[in-house]
Amino acid sequence: MSRVYNFSAGPAVLPEEVLKTAASEMLDYHGCGMSVMEMSHRSKMFDDIIKTAEADLRELLSIPDDYSVIFLQGGAHLLFAGIPMNFLKKKAGYIITGQWATKAFKEAAKQGEAVELASSKDKTFSYIPDCSDLPITDDMDYVYICENNTIYGTKYHTLPNTKGRPLVSDVSSCFLSEPMDVTKYDFIYAGVQKNVGPAGVQIVIAKNSFLTDDVKPYTPDIMNYKLMAEKESLLNTPPCYGIYICGLVFKWLKEMGGLKEMGRRNEEKAKILYDFLDQSKLFKGTVRKEDRSIMNVPFVTGDADLDAKFVAESKAAGLENLKGHRTVGGMRASIYNAMPRAGVEKLVEFMEAFEKANS
Amino acid sequence: MSRVYNFSAGPAVLPEEVLKTAASEMLDYHGCGMSVMEMSHRSKMFDDIIKTAEADLRELLSIPDDYSVIFLQGGAHLLFAGIPMNFLKKKAGYIITGQWATKAFKEAAKQGEAVELASSKDKTFSYIPDCSDLPITDDMDYVYICENNTIYGTKYHTLPNTKGRPLVSDVSSCFLSEPMDVTKYDFIYAGVQKNVGPAGVQIVIAKNSFLTDDVKPYTPDIMNYKLMAEKESLLNTPPCYGIYICGLVFKWLKEMGGLKEMGRRNEEKAKILYDFLDQSKLFKGTVRKEDRSIMNVPFVTGDADLDAKFVAESKAAGLENLKGHRTVGGMRASIYNAMPRAGVEKLVEFMEAFEKANS
Repeated sequence: MSRVYNFSAGPAVLPEEVLKTAASEMLDYHGCGMSVMEMSHRSKMFDDIIKTAEADLRELLSIPDDYSVIFLQGGAHLLFAGIPMNFLKKKAGYIITGQWATKAFKEAAKQGEAVELASSKDKTFSYIPDCSDLPITDDMDYVYICENNTIYGTKYHTLPNTKGRPLVSDVSSCFLSEPMDVTKYDFIYAGVQKNVGPAGVQIVIAKNSFLTDDVKPYTPDIMNYKLMAEKESLLNTPPCYGIYICGLVFKWLKEMGGLKEMGRRNEEKAKILYDFLDQSKLFKGTVRKEDRSIMNVPFVTGDADLDAKFVAESKAAGLENLKGHRTVGGMRASIYNAMPRAGVEKLVEFMEAFEKANS
Repeated sequence: MSRVYNFSAGPAVLPEEVLKTAASEMLDYHGCGMSVMEMSHRSKMFDDIIKTAEADLRELLSIPDDYSVIFLQGGAHLLFAGIPMNFLKKKAGYIITGQWATKAFKEAAKQGEAVELASSKDKTFSYIPDCSDLPITDDMDYVYICENNTIYGTKYHTLPNTKGRPLVSDVSSCFLSEPMDVTKYDFIYAGVQKNVGPAGVQIVIAKNSFLTDDVKPYTPDIMNYKLMAEKESLLNTPPCYGIYICGLVFKWLKEMGGLKEMGRRNEEKAKILYDFLDQSKLFKGTVRKEDRSIMNVPFVTGDADLDAKFVAESKAAGLENLKGHRTVGGMRASIYNAMPRAGVEKLVEFMEAFEKANS
């Protein structure tokens, strides 16, 4: 067995320790004689798994008691639709900072009045717009953001001034990468396949007072978030195995020292890469400096052929999935929690050698 | 490691060979240096996994070319809602044979006119109603059934006469248990957590001419089945790891000899249990004989205390999850594809001994 450094934007690298535990427990979880995949979701064993996962997540993020944690399925895409089903009564404001916010906006517009409050599409979403004084009105049910933009490599380092309206945030690609103040939000969600687990699970953290029975009449029961919170994610069969892996990752994060320590490590890893980019004569970061993500780092040479050569040669060197998204081109290194510092160092070494050989 | 005989109704027993393969490939899939959980869903490797899974499923079920195969997430519950979103224009007929058909009916009624064509609720869903001449009208967009009723242990051994209207069938708990003639249906779906894989994946087999662009305006993109078919299940990130496990199960089914052979084995296993029940003086099957499922076998002693004693003692003997659903009481043995004949034999031996000791 030989593991590569996997810079995939998602599904993405998971901690090797977690995968080893999962492999060792595959046929017999804690002596119960079956796999987690084979357990009834109503069993005592699975109840322990999901309750422990929730408790560990609450501890990691200091989630207050008046917030619910819900495990869902269907992808962020289903939340794009579920959020307006639950919360869009009159109108909702969307800040468009990339492809995922755009898709969320389009799903909302199918169901009611969705207002574009700001956008950075004029410059290929390479920055976060000024959100200090947006045209937010009192009749807006919520303000929606995508907090870390996986494709474009931007992040809100200051949350928008929502003028008192509830904030809904897609944190998929920065979830658990550093501490966050949950109380600043009414509804937070993340697809776990970036930083936490296998594709097929989403985690919602919602203020109980924001959840409502007054959903659109056609809302499927499993997209009614108040109902799902009341049923503790078990209205129907949840994606049990994925939740189990998330739980293992939460344990790993606690062992690593929690989110403050993860934030420190992630800042450090990102700095290694950005410092190199900022002095390079060949490679350039594509994002305005003050809006840079510490999770997703896009960069280009400015020459498409050279970019392609870089991607091919880096792959041959055991650095996988560095090709950028087709809408940005070039390269992108996703350096999530489970990417070790050594992986980033190896990438920078490779970039140095490539620059030398190609200039 | 010691494995139990797991009679859970779902999530349920999986083939040990499949779990062993999954464990061995957990950190490094086929030498690629990463887990299937860590792969981009747009990668060549995952493309091979999902395409091979589809090809093997098509071979197992002899799915014609004018049918699409789609891998979804969200649970059968999401399909309960998605089916009327896509197909209910004027009205739809539902045959109510248990809890899942009831829930599907309720989701449809949120969105349009859902007509109850027949029901077996008068006798705790212990039989399949006569479906030879139902009040099906030409303006019905489809007729909906739940073909095998996991909770109640019934199965349609003859499909309803739909009078030419399209047939939509939830086959979750009998999927791949025996051959089926796909051409008799317009839309087939199964949650895989009974007979095929881990919770969190559903498989749809749909006649292309039944799929439509004319969906309800609020339909989320990932619930638009025509769009999902066109995108080959990759409109968004699919539940990759679950699809991989399904693919391993398809390979296992082919190695076992395919669905005809699985049907023969399943008939044989069910016969062992039903033959015992039919001569027992203590245990009674709860289902009308001609409607019995070969997958889910509920039975009772008629004495709730004795039932509880049976469940406790069987568990101690390594026979897990025999407690019946709360709406039926008593016991239920789910004997899916991956339950070996030896497990059913051990159950019957245990029942014989229990009967002797308690009469």
